This record gives sequence, structure tokens and C-alpha cells, in this order.
Amino acid sequence: MVRQGALLYEGKAKKVYATDDPGLYIVEYKDDATAFNGQKRGQIVGKGEVNNRISAVLFKMLERGGVATHFVEQLSPRTSLVKAVDIIPVEVVVRNLAAGSMAARLGLQEGTPLARPVLEFYYKNDELGDPWVTEDHIELLGWADAATLQQMKAMAIRIDQLLTAFFRQCGVTLVDFKLEFGRTRDGSLVLADEISPDTCRLWDAKTGEKLDKDRFRRDLGGVEAAYQEMLARVEKGELA
Amino acid sequence: MVRQGALLYEGKAKKVYATDDPGLYIVEYKDDATAFNGQKRGQIVGKGEVNNRISAVLFKMLERGGVATHFVEQLSPRTSLVKAVDIIPVEVVVRNLAAGSMAARLGLQEGTPLARPVLEFYYKNDELGDPWVTEDHIELLGWADAATLQQMKAMAIRIDQLLTAFFRQCGVTLVDFKLEFGRTRDGSLVLADEISPDTCRLWDAKTGEKLDKDRFRRDLGGVEAAYQEMLARVEKGELA
Repeated sequence: MVRQGALLYEGKAKKVYATDDPGLYIVEYKDDATAFNGQKRGQIVGKGEVNNRISAVLFKMLERGGVATHFVEQLSPRTSLVKAVDIIPVEVVVRNLAAGSMAARLGLQEGTPLARPVLEFYYKNDELGDPWVTEDHIELLGWADAATLQQMKAMAIRIDQLLTAFFRQCGVTLVDFKLEFGRTRDGSLVLADEISPDTCRLWDAKTGEKLDKDRFRRDLGGVEAAYQEMLARVEKGELA
Repeated sequence: MVRQGALLYEGKAKKVYATDDPGLYIVEYKDDATAFNGQKRGQIVGKGEVNNRISAVLFKMLERGGVATHFVEQLSPRTSLVKAVDIIPVEVVVRNLAAGSMAARLGLQEGTPLARPVLEFYYKNDELGDPWVTEDHIELLGWADAATLQQMKAMAIRIDQLLTAFFRQCGVTLVDFKLEFGRTRDGSLVLADEISPDTCRLWDAKTGEKLDKDRFRRDLGGVEAAYQEMLARVEKGELA
């Protein structure tokens, strides 16, 4: 059993602690919610636990599907043990249907299907508001080399396949999601961060009801209930 | 000699007229200047003539370099005869140094050199403010098919090489520029629109002085003089 050490980093939704093993961190998920690059702030009661538990199920499922992740094990309702990684400062967004910023930017109706998954890249930088970037920008500005970027893209497509199939059996359409990658101390590229209703758009497959952070972003109400509903479906899906 | 017909289209900087030949249009360059998606408006005296004459020189130079363009011939100081094209609604931006929106978005100093040219794509749509798009968006939303997009990219890189060399002998650094492509009545893909201080960032190679529309956008003064200076250098460069 590792021992929790100093707080290394506190983000908008998580705290990261050192442990007595330099190759391992403890992540603690918070109830704090932010949107629009921190301009909107609030709390979603129980969110920390929901996101930790959902991420644990999904990281384990992805590992079984051959995707390397930072996840080691869930330690408590709100905490998990993960491999220490240096985060690559590029967020990868995978879209199966047009929604959110893509729909608004391109004048498309939310839910417009895309003939194949679309990848978008954003430079992870709060001060600049996570600006969009191209693969050229990423390589030329040195955030990831060409080989790493190709590996991230291939992993993102594989993750989309696995997540889409998993959520389908939960009666949920995976609309889009955001991924972060990092390198462990031994140099391996792994999926990091979290996979949760904070980082995915998840719609009930029958009714289209939103079961994700858009309920908070857009003041749709029923935020806590939606997060609990997703947790129930994901934990039921894990047993299926 | 073709005869000018009805006004087909009036844009922010140009008017396009039909002719008695359905395969040909007449373009008339205006002095009107706009910036920031039309939010800033003004006039740059003599701009129409400068841009028409510079575009004529550059289109002829590109044709000699093997790039197909819509240009046929200059008719008067402000007008040129061009092939009728259906414009592909994707603007291609080629960048050799970081400047403008790229520098601002990514927190880079203006003038930061890029190890190789960077292409960016924007959906040509005033209502949406010409949003950035990826190659995936362009193909999936049907604005250009994969083969056309590859051809546009290859042409853009070739155009960058030719323009960079031409401007260098004019004592000017080609920082970045915007291209539009179209298909002629026989289906050929050609470079369309204009190439001018309205659509390029052009810096004096020695002093770094801006000789382009940024003087208007950023209220730097000396706008007309900069356009006249560019015309003089380009017409001298043509004879070199």
C-alpha cells in the first residue's frame, strides 16, 4: 500500500498527490465544476465520486482492450492510484456527432452525424483559453513529435471504438470526448486524466437526454441526477 | 474583346461582372477596406488599382511557375479578366512566420520563424466569421473531397515557394497569406481571388516595416504609402 505524500498540483476538478513511490501518484476527484475556461464555477454534489468510479471502470475496460492508461487501481470512493506521467500539453477531442463548439462554430445542428470520427487538437493552456491547433502547430512548436502524435491519434481512434461499444450497451450515445496523454517515468505513452461525464458528451440513446456536464454548462437542471444515472449505467455495464 | 455584363456579386473588396462569354468574368477591385470580419470599415485610396496590378503580376508569375490560376489579363487599372469559377468555400492560409491570429492564439511573438510552412483552413462563411476547420471537417461536410483538398495543399506549398522567392527579390519577407481556389467551367482546379497586400502579410526584409493591410487593421498610419511602395517593388521585381 503506497502512502499519500505532498499535494503536487490542484486543478479545476482534481488534486494530484505524490506517494512514497516516485512512479505513482494519487488522484483525488473534486466536486468543483467549471466551464467556459473557468468563467463559470459551481459544485456538483457527488461528482468527484462519480467521476472517479466511472473513470476506474472505463480505464480498466480500455486496458482489457489493449489501450495503455495511467490507471493502477481505485483506492477510495474519490481517489485512485495512477502512474506518474508528464502530460503532453495537447488535448485530443474525438467527435462522432457534431455538438458543442463544433456545431456552433460550423453552424450545424447538434447531433448531426459525422460519417467517420473527427479528431481536433487543442493546446492545453488556461491562459490562452486552450486554443485550437493543427498537427503542424503541435510538431513545429514542439508539444509532441510526429511519431508521438501519430500514436496519440491511433490510440484515440481505438479508444473511441471501445468507448462507443461500451456506452452503447449502457443505452448511451457517445457524442464526443476529450483525451489527454502522458509519458510515464519509463517513457511509455499512456492515456491519462479522466473519462467521465465531465469530459464526454453522453446522450441517452432513446430520448437524447443529456447525461453529462452540458447540464451544468447550459443550466439544464438535474445535474447531480444525471451524473448518478451515468454511474449506475456504467457500473451495470461493467457487469454485462 | 469581351463586353462587360451584369454585376454578379459585390464583395467587401471586389465586384464581379458577367461578360458575353459565359466562361469569363470581369473583376473590379475597390478601395473599400474591411477587417475583423467586417467590423472595421474604411477606404484605402488607390488600393483597388494597387491590388489589381499586383495580382496581375503575381498571377502571371505563378502561371509561368506552373500554377493554374483564374487570371486571363489585366483590362484597366482596376479591372482584370478572369475565368469564371465556382469558388471552393475553404480559405487556405499559408504561414512562414507566426503572426496575426496564430501568434495571438498560441502566445507566440510576431515573427517567430516556423521550421516549415504551416497550412490552416477556414470555412469561407461571413455569417459564421470564417471559422477554422480541419481537413476532416472539410471532407465530411462536403466542402471539398479528399483529392481536391490534397491538390489544394500541394498547390499552396508550390505557391508559397514561388511567392517567397519573388518577394525576396523585392526586399520583402512573405510572412503569411490567404488563398482561395475554384473550379472553372471545364472542371479544372485553379487559384482564384487575389494576391495583394490585402491577403498577404508583407514585411520589409531589412527593417521589418509592415507593407500590408495590418497598417489599416492596427491603425499604424501610412496605409496608402505602404500599398504604393508594394506596387512599386512588385512591378520592379517583375522586370528583374
